[in-house]
Amino acid sequence: LMHKHTFVHFQDPASQRLTWNNPPKSVLVIKKIRDPSLLQPFKELCVFLTEVKDMVVYVEKKVLEDPAISADENFGAITKKFCTFREDLDDISNRVDFIICLGGDGTLLYASSLFQESVPPVMAFHLGSLGFLTPFKFDTYQSQVTQIIEGNAAIVLRSRLKVRVLKKNWEKKAQMDEQGIILTNGDSENNHKAMQYQVLNEVVVDRGPSSYLSNVDLFLDGHLITTVQGDGVIVSTPTGSTAYAVAAGASMIHPNVPAIMITPICPHSLSFRPIVVPAGVELKIMLSQDARNTAWVSFDGRKRQEICHGDSITITTSCFPVPSICFRDPVNDWFESLAQCLHWNVRKKQNYLSSEDEDY
Amino acid sequence: LMHKHTFVHFQDPASQRLTWNNPPKSVLVIKKIRDPSLLQPFKELCVFLTEVKDMVVYVEKKVLEDPAISADENFGAITKKFCTFREDLDDISNRVDFIICLGGDGTLLYASSLFQESVPPVMAFHLGSLGFLTPFKFDTYQSQVTQIIEGNAAIVLRSRLKVRVLKKNWEKKAQMDEQGIILTNGDSENNHKAMQYQVLNEVVVDRGPSSYLSNVDLFLDGHLITTVQGDGVIVSTPTGSTAYAVAAGASMIHPNVPAIMITPICPHSLSFRPIVVPAGVELKIMLSQDARNTAWVSFDGRKRQEICHGDSITITTSCFPVPSICFRDPVNDWFESLAQCLHWNVRKKQNYLSSEDEDY
Amino acid sequence: LMHKHTFVHFQDPASQRLTWNNPPKSVLVIKKIRDPSLLQPFKELCVFLTEVKDMVVYVEKKVLEDPAISADENFGAITKKFCTFREDLDDISNRVDFIICLGGDGTLLYASSLFQESVPPVMAFHLGSLGFLTPFKFDTYQSQVTQIIEGNAAIVLRSRLKVRVLKKNWEKKAQMDEQGIILTNGDSENNHKAMQYQVLNEVVVDRGPSSYLSNVDLFLDGHLITTVQGDGVIVSTPTGSTAYAVAAGASMIHPNVPAIMITPICPHSLSFRPIVVPAGVELKIMLSQDARNTAWVSFDGRKRQEICHGDSITITTSCFPVPSICFRDPVNDWFESLAQCLHWNVRKKQNYLSSEDEDY
Amino acid sequence: LMHKHTFVHFQDPASQRLTWNNPPKSVLVIKKIRDPSLLQPFKELCVFLTEVKDMVVYVEKKVLEDPAISADENFGAITKKFCTFREDLDDISNRVDFIICLGGDGTLLYASSLFQESVPPVMAFHLGSLGFLTPFKFDTYQSQVTQIIEGNAAIVLRSRLKVRVLKKNWEKKAQMDEQGIILTNGDSENNHKAMQYQVLNEVVVDRGPSSYLSNVDLFLDGHLITTVQGDGVIVSTPTGSTAYAVAAGASMIHPNVPAIMITPICPHSLSFRPIVVPAGVELKIMLSQDARNTAWVSFDGRKRQEICHGDSITITTSCFPVPSICFRDPVNDWFESLAQCLHWNVRKKQNYLSSEDEDY
Repeated sequence: LMHKHTFVHFQDPASQRLTWNNPPKSVLVIKKIRDPSLLQPFKELCVFLTEVKDMVVYVEKKVLEDPAISADENFGAITKKFCTFREDLDDISNRVDFIICLGGDGTLLYASSLFQESVPPVMAFHLGSLGFLTPFKFDTYQSQVTQIIEGNAAIVLRSRLKVRVLKKNWEKKAQMDEQGIILTNGDSENNHKAMQYQVLNEVVVDRGPSSYLSNVDLFLDGHLITTVQGDGVIVSTPTGSTAYAVAAGASMIHPNVPAIMITPICPHSLSFRPIVVPAGVELKIMLSQDARNTAWVSFDGRKRQEICHGDSITITTSCFPVPSICFRDPVNDWFESLAQCLHWNVRKKQNYLSSEDEDY
Repeated sequence: LMHKHTFVHFQDPASQRLTWNNPPKSVLVIKKIRDPSLLQPFKELCVFLTEVKDMVVYVEKKVLEDPAISADENFGAITKKFCTFREDLDDISNRVDFIICLGGDGTLLYASSLFQESVPPVMAFHLGSLGFLTPFKFDTYQSQVTQIIEGNAAIVLRSRLKVRVLKKNWEKKAQMDEQGIILTNGDSENNHKAMQYQVLNEVVVDRGPSSYLSNVDLFLDGHLITTVQGDGVIVSTPTGSTAYAVAAGASMIHPNVPAIMITPICPHSLSFRPIVVPAGVELKIMLSQDARNTAWVSFDGRKRQEICHGDSITITTSCFPVPSICFRDPVNDWFESLAQCLHWNVRKKQNYLSSEDEDY
Repeated sequence: LMHKHTFVHFQDPASQRLTWNNPPKSVLVIKKIRDPSLLQPFKELCVFLTEVKDMVVYVEKKVLEDPAISADENFGAITKKFCTFREDLDDISNRVDFIICLGGDGTLLYASSLFQESVPPVMAFHLGSLGFLTPFKFDTYQSQVTQIIEGNAAIVLRSRLKVRVLKKNWEKKAQMDEQGIILTNGDSENNHKAMQYQVLNEVVVDRGPSSYLSNVDLFLDGHLITTVQGDGVIVSTPTGSTAYAVAAGASMIHPNVPAIMITPICPHSLSFRPIVVPAGVELKIMLSQDARNTAWVSFDGRKRQEICHGDSITITTSCFPVPSICFRDPVNDWFESLAQCLHWNVRKKQNYLSSEDEDY
Repeated sequence: LMHKHTFVHFQDPASQRLTWNNPPKSVLVIKKIRDPSLLQPFKELCVFLTEVKDMVVYVEKKVLEDPAISADENFGAITKKFCTFREDLDDISNRVDFIICLGGDGTLLYASSLFQESVPPVMAFHLGSLGFLTPFKFDTYQSQVTQIIEGNAAIVLRSRLKVRVLKKNWEKKAQMDEQGIILTNGDSENNHKAMQYQVLNEVVVDRGPSSYLSNVDLFLDGHLITTVQGDGVIVSTPTGSTAYAVAAGASMIHPNVPAIMITPICPHSLSFRPIVVPAGVELKIMLSQDARNTAWVSFDGRKRQEICHGDSITITTSCFPVPSICFRDPVNDWFESLAQCLHWNVRKKQNYLSSEDEDY
């Protein structure tokens, strides 16, 4: 009988482990800027990685140009061993084995944006309060970094979205310095431009400064599935479900679920509940024909740009997830973050129906 | 570099197709009972399957005992060729190649309950209004059934939950006729009983007739993740996300997403948003130690039973999904159901912010 | 010009103060039963009221019959000075000037149920955790009670609902001891029965033990406004908006707003948002003609009873609110309860959109 | 006994009727601009009011300057009898007895903005689809206008909010043409400016073009009650509860409820449910001390302006409601709008729990 073969097996997310093919030799250190409390940890960590672990440290040029760092003569000596780079100018994506982030969730979003293809494993420290993406405490960083380098860690592969923006009537004068990877330059014939972004949290399309509702069409695998009328729409990864999407009313999705979440922002329709679709689909967003205004799109809160009639935003799940190193494991880390960051189901015990005759 | 290998591929749900190893020879026909409008379609279909398609038709005994059927002499002759069975007494799970349902979503839930292991492909007709599980119209049933038998159809594998109920202090006198598969009989030593169910929509744990809040602990992979205080909790498949869970506030999940949804029912806590966890985890529900009342559990709305201190409900994704035949494909069928059954994002076009100076 | 007269003034809720026409002479003390931690406070308070304040103390008979109280010989002497009564048998509504509650919100709901017409001012102590209806701490009860008796307090008039249940085919054999005020006895001609309740939190109509959706029609001022299909519907006062209604998704309404809230419980329709109507309307609930099952109704969680075809539940705002004495004032007490009981907008400061280039 | 006097009476909203002290002599006609379909109805109505009803018609100057009107010679003759005015320059608030609106809800918001104190009765026609504020159909406008002039109509007094914006460090160079009533001009000593607005739907405070969360403090009667972290906050009238607030998740409030609604926009906190407070309170909104960015405020979608550290927005219920004439009555009109504009509880009848043994 045929149906005997309909047997499906599911992997427990807790079973994924970090594996290094070769021990990591180079490490990119990302530091939240303009936060003086991070200076000392940053310096300590860089010294440790360079001198104790004998790794090549990559740091962004502008981090070292911060007077609070460049003026420190003691630290100055060691910075000479660092490799530096400039965002959007130098490509380090093939030269880094390992990433360490110091700061909030934004550091990991930034790290993600530097790698348009595969991403090295990321270890993220929260220096202030716990974030969803920054599970490690800095106190015992030496032993923890050592353990990771030895390959002793659980990992969660956080899916990203590959977003392709096609601008129809793009003019050269509008070319600003805020684009992602430019795939096609506008030319005199077709006047098109395509850009591509890797997104870890979400793509947001909203009405921008307009006081009119945004009015965008949403296509799935080429079919128009609905029109979004409201403040906008969020297309997020499971990782992004606990960021802007949760504020807009979405359910929270564990990062190991292969899915894409679509959440309207203040929709005009009472029945526009968020939906979750399989990771394998292709979404496309365009202005509706009868939209009176343009819309605006941003990618993990960055690279904000206008979307006009005829432009399109195509979204698929990227083949290049972010391998995010766990403090404990993907399940415990996530529930810890839900409690700490969102106070999920924190409550006082009470019996609101306790008005029974016998117990009032 | 190790991270080059972090490359993940996702399948488009639209690509799944029905395949028969051998052409189906036997077909189980399930008819909603006590609905006179289904009698004629049921008879027509059975004649067609038996005489035209030369298949062995399985029908539940009590369906044929309905006077409206047994009194029909014309139809009586053909029923002699049918194989009949009784629920809970006769096991037909290895004898059926194909299932056809006539009626609402309940017929498919019932079909699912008959197959504790693998399930044959199911083709479901809605005779009245469209349901989430019943995509086919009966008008052209002959050509449509023929196409399916020829293997020309898309399919969606609807995941089920395997639910194991362990009753701690089970006494023989309490043995009622409402159990599923009894795994362990109570004996004089341990006085335990275990039952197992396959669930297509959801497991519901609620406060039953009590006017006190239910108070249950929820474990994931052995860790206590939260305590549910409220009317109850729904653990559902993606298929079930559009049933009771959506009424309790859940986001809707496409059936191809490998996930389990946890939705509180009227939770006492404002922050108890529904969550979605990977299909590979193991959930367990038990009464909290300080629960003043028992709870009640049901499985796809059936087999309702009490849960006492020490009893446990263990839930994993089943290895045996329901292969549900699509009318068009998994994506279009689902969005069609969202619109028809839930009026998802049906709205009047309006600009509520249209109070600009220049346009009032 | 006529419209010059369209001028409306609103009173600030903070300005309402308790006023005694004569100093209170009699006090009803209500104690949550079966809670040993309340015994000592209860005794202390009764001694204080009787001996220091020279008031006549009313206590329910069954409270004094509790062995933990009747066995205390010291306290026995003083109980002889108390007036006792039995619920549903003795009417004390005209004999009590003042009410003091010890325990949770349930004590105040119970106190409300004893007064079908006007209610004396209520001072409610929370002995455990803060409730919405019990703002006073017991520590300094002597000075606080003294202040109240001297008329030095803010007050909030909590509106109640007057609910009239008309049973159409009521049979004498079904007469149980759970009714409220019986307005009309069944007689051989019309076989009707009417009962009336005063409700402080909410009237709940639900599907009871049935696994089918409830299906009830909702009328406002005689017009059918909608049909509720789901687990049920809650008609609540503003006071009740923070009880069961908030768990079902309602917004929270301050008790000084003259309004009635209608909140569906797990509605089948995505667009069934709760609504708030003016206090002056008349609501009526009946089973829908096509309802397959009966419904069940309860009043502040009590007096649960079945509702059959033809029965009706008529709800208006009662003329007899509960004068609830404030700890500080109606506004501060309410926001304190929102924070303490519901953790309203308790959060960690975080900037989820902080992924700007310059600040990651 | 004192508490006998605690007796409260509530008025049924359906009982409010329009009364003219003197028959209306002057009528302001407001027409949505740039909508050619309104030209013919506008002309017809103006001729009817002038020639048949002998009323003085007020029209905004720019309406008559529309070429589609000024070019019509037939209509030109009659326009000479009209009184014209210019927004923000001519005050007609004491010269108009009656208002007629043609177009969408925006026309009524605009009409409201013209009257900072008392507002004449408003009759609003929807020319396209039904709005919440525009209950009349134009087909039979002659008989309907006649009925209204004869005083034969129900009325709903829609409360407005009086909003006072105090700019702390206001500089003369920033004085743009977008202010409301300027109460205090900046002077060399204090450099302050105060403006006042009458708002029918809502005041919105949001993060404007910033990608950071807004961070504003909310005070009630002088006490800090909470801090709003998110996209913003909506303070709305009951009339406004069905506009932007409902999109942000608010319950719907009937316009006869004397209340103010506070609704967060995409709040960072899961527990930040909307609240409803009595009409008599005073609200104040200021930037939080630790806000990194300014906020933006708008009034019924208009007069958008920036709010900086030290500025304050003070909100009370206005003494000057909008007397809005009903098509049927305040209750029926409202439920008709809920159904037509928001599809409130529109649904297909279905029994999602109908998976009982006996009925599958």
